[in-house]
Amino acid sequence: MSIVALCPGTFDPVTNGHLDIVERASRLFDRVIVAVVENPAKEPLFSVEERVTMLKEGVSGLDNVEVDSFSGLLVDYARGKGTTLIVKGLRAVSDFDYELQMAQMNDHLAEVETCFIPTSPSWSYLSSSLVKDVARYGGDVSRLVPPHVLDRLKEKLD
Amino acid sequence: MSIVALCPGTFDPVTNGHLDIVERASRLFDRVIVAVVENPAKEPLFSVEERVTMLKEGVSGLDNVEVDSFSGLLVDYARGKGTTLIVKGLRAVSDFDYELQMAQMNDHLAEVETCFIPTSPSWSYLSSSLVKDVARYGGDVSRLVPPHVLDRLKEKLD
Amino acid sequence: MSIVALCPGTFDPVTNGHLDIVERASRLFDRVIVAVVENPAKEPLFSVEERVTMLKEGVSGLDNVEVDSFSGLLVDYARGKGTTLIVKGLRAVSDFDYELQMAQMNDHLAEVETCFIPTSPSWSYLSSSLVKDVARYGGDVSRLVPPHVLDRLKEKLD
Amino acid sequence: MSIVALCPGTFDPVTNGHLDIVERASRLFDRVIVAVVENPAKEPLFSVEERVTMLKEGVSGLDNVEVDSFSGLLVDYARGKGTTLIVKGLRAVSDFDYELQMAQMNDHLAEVETCFIPTSPSWSYLSSSLVKDVARYGGDVSRLVPPHVLDRLKEKLD
Amino acid sequence: MSIVALCPGTFDPVTNGHLDIVERASRLFDRVIVAVVENPAKEPLFSVEERVTMLKEGVSGLDNVEVDSFSGLLVDYARGKGTTLIVKGLRAVSDFDYELQMAQMNDHLAEVETCFIPTSPSWSYLSSSLVKDVARYGGDVSRLVPPHVLDRLKEKLD
Amino acid sequence: MSIVALCPGTFDPVTNGHLDIVERASRLFDRVIVAVVENPAKEPLFSVEERVTMLKEGVSGLDNVEVDSFSGLLVDYARGKGTTLIVKGLRAVSDFDYELQMAQMNDHLAEVETCFIPTSPSWSYLSSSLVKDVARYGGDVSRLVPPHVLDRLKEKLD
Repeated sequence: MSIVALCPGTFDPVTNGHLDIVERASRLFDRVIVAVVENPAKEPLFSVEERVTMLKEGVSGLDNVEVDSFSGLLVDYARGKGTTLIVKGLRAVSDFDYELQMAQMNDHLAEVETCFIPTSPSWSYLSSSLVKDVARYGGDVSRLVPPHVLDRLKEKLD
Repeated sequence: MSIVALCPGTFDPVTNGHLDIVERASRLFDRVIVAVVENPAKEPLFSVEERVTMLKEGVSGLDNVEVDSFSGLLVDYARGKGTTLIVKGLRAVSDFDYELQMAQMNDHLAEVETCFIPTSPSWSYLSSSLVKDVARYGGDVSRLVPPHVLDRLKEKLD
Repeated sequence: MSIVALCPGTFDPVTNGHLDIVERASRLFDRVIVAVVENPAKEPLFSVEERVTMLKEGVSGLDNVEVDSFSGLLVDYARGKGTTLIVKGLRAVSDFDYELQMAQMNDHLAEVETCFIPTSPSWSYLSSSLVKDVARYGGDVSRLVPPHVLDRLKEKLD
Repeated sequence: MSIVALCPGTFDPVTNGHLDIVERASRLFDRVIVAVVENPAKEPLFSVEERVTMLKEGVSGLDNVEVDSFSGLLVDYARGKGTTLIVKGLRAVSDFDYELQMAQMNDHLAEVETCFIPTSPSWSYLSSSLVKDVARYGGDVSRLVPPHVLDRLKEKLD
Repeated sequence: MSIVALCPGTFDPVTNGHLDIVERASRLFDRVIVAVVENPAKEPLFSVEERVTMLKEGVSGLDNVEVDSFSGLLVDYARGKGTTLIVKGLRAVSDFDYELQMAQMNDHLAEVETCFIPTSPSWSYLSSSLVKDVARYGGDVSRLVPPHVLDRLKEKLD
Repeated sequence: MSIVALCPGTFDPVTNGHLDIVERASRLFDRVIVAVVENPAKEPLFSVEERVTMLKEGVSGLDNVEVDSFSGLLVDYARGKGTTLIVKGLRAVSDFDYELQMAQMNDHLAEVETCFIPTSPSWSYLSSSLVKDVARYGGDVSRLVPPHVLDRLKEKLD
């Protein structure tokens, strides 16, 4: 049995919290696909290409992890990749209610399973949007994102 | 004593989860008014008229249920209809906090009571916005909404 | 249609928060039965008879409310009384998760419906066990329970 | 030791719930600075100046409280004022998760501590946005905000 | 890579909800060990041997699942079995807070990872203790546990 | 104004999480009294005297902190010490609901205020009872409690 786990997300941009989850997933499953969602309704800071590039640099040390992007339904993308397993990080109770709703919908739509991995306590308060808010006002986010993401945040927000 | 229960909502569109709650309410109270909120701040997919029509088809088998729409304060509408009872479905803990706040405000404003009925576990993950998201990307929502709503969703999203 | 609502509980002893819920229920439903649970596994401060007596004094001003007690399954008792409606007060989110579980079990077992009414904010922190803890150490609970309950608490804890 | 507590917020407009928290803080700490956030991303009903003026009238009876406004990072503003203590009111569980995330981020960024004070149960359902929604439709909010705020709400929404 | 997932629990007795989680786990991981906790502090209805036997019958159709029991620290047992992966079902938000605490402790103690799989909505209200309570009073739990568990419950509670 | 903050708890035994909160409180308030609750209903592992001694060693580096014990109502003890301020650490949402109830009761009984300080994320999963459970089975808790508490745990559990 060879299990492929899908880690979907907006990753605008990838944080140390995301990378913690991807690394944990890479130890639990044979292959991990990190998949950037192209959501036309949201206005991300970084383009899909930039987000994929930052993720690729972030996971370059993990042999069984690849990075991709998709639009449309997650369950269709998962089926197309030959997997029925989604892996999500959980930070707090408020995440859980929404994620549980999505997990049950994806199970209903296409028998796609969701597996939740708790984020390390050190990253429990970390989110991409909070990182952007702090960086926008000149706050120091150097311990919250990898160095190459820090550089791109500075360029983008200058 | 003849009790009229008010089931307010956006119903954009009505789902099987909404109909489950209305049916339960129709067994508990003498008369049920399902009331579509006209909220100028939101941009619904369906017009108020379309939402009322879909609801009417959905509750056609329930004798003591009628469908209406309103704008303005819910408590004013309730008082105008001669009732002080609102009935809401509860799916999850995250619903509860917001709904409790609204219920206490409505009690404060006009001594209008709110009564919560838990959604059937089968519909716990179901919401109008999730149905629209899934339908938009071609996902199969045929077990989540009644057939006549499915048809209108397809027309609208084509 | 004549609707009978069942308000089950331990009521050890009845508090102003309980009476607030019973009064609200008595305005919403034709008849209300407040039912004291005889639970051999718990060690209550007051006997079932004492709890029934205190409740009867507490609801004496409400014409359509009666007080009873039962042992065994709540759904069997409800069916025996010819009703399929349970009414419960909800104080906080932590109540909700457990009560939702019980409500769904009772619906599964016997199609008995549960309807939740939010407690007034003024009583949100009130519970029988907290009242007993405070009274035990000589704290003033005179605004939390009716006068006749206060007297019995003093007798019992002296 | 002289402790300065910072109460940041949007205060659009200040409610009786906010004033309850500021008054509690003024009894616990030597000096309290209520600080209006200038957030260019939000579209407030009242300008920063109006919000500061309404707050000043609201806290005029409290000797050790002053009102200010700021833009940028809260931790930078706090450090500039010579304090590392933020005080926030907590109404409900749903507030808590987000506020905990912000508190841990502020501790991470600049060792700025957050101290949570529970809102009085009477104001548990009260928020500025709900007050505006109700006032907009002609509902009576006279027990939810101070008289001078009521007047300004009427002017603004007429 | 061959991944062994550990499903620990009290299983007093195993329910259809537990079996749903074990079956999901058996599709995601190469091998699953369902491990009954021997906890001297609790007074279970069934002995460890009985609980193991009921589990074995319940998972007999799943090739890659075995049943075992252990006492002592879960992380020691996991390490002894050559795995660092625990799989737990999640029913509701109230489960989550406690399970997250245990998961973070196990990660701290021995870098043992916990992976949460949401229970099917149909079993969201199901727990071993509720099943025992209902069965004790003669309620019908035949759709909540497998037939062989139903028989043993009847014997035990007669 | 000289503010005395009361940190009540069972402290059976004190953990690094407790000490983190006491240290934070000692920076925010003029004087801190850590008060061990003597609760005859609970069966602690350590006597009140042992718990006080371990706390005293734990806070020996903090000049404005003293350690005491009490029985009876917390609000009576607070009033006797001339303070109306209680400080509690908050780890997770599940703590919050219960602590909010206690805080509102204490405010009702004697206008005693409660101020919540979030625990550092690193200690979010830490509790005295979990420490005892782990230590009882030989797990390594050396990073979770101070060295002198570790020694006493070993003695007690041998």
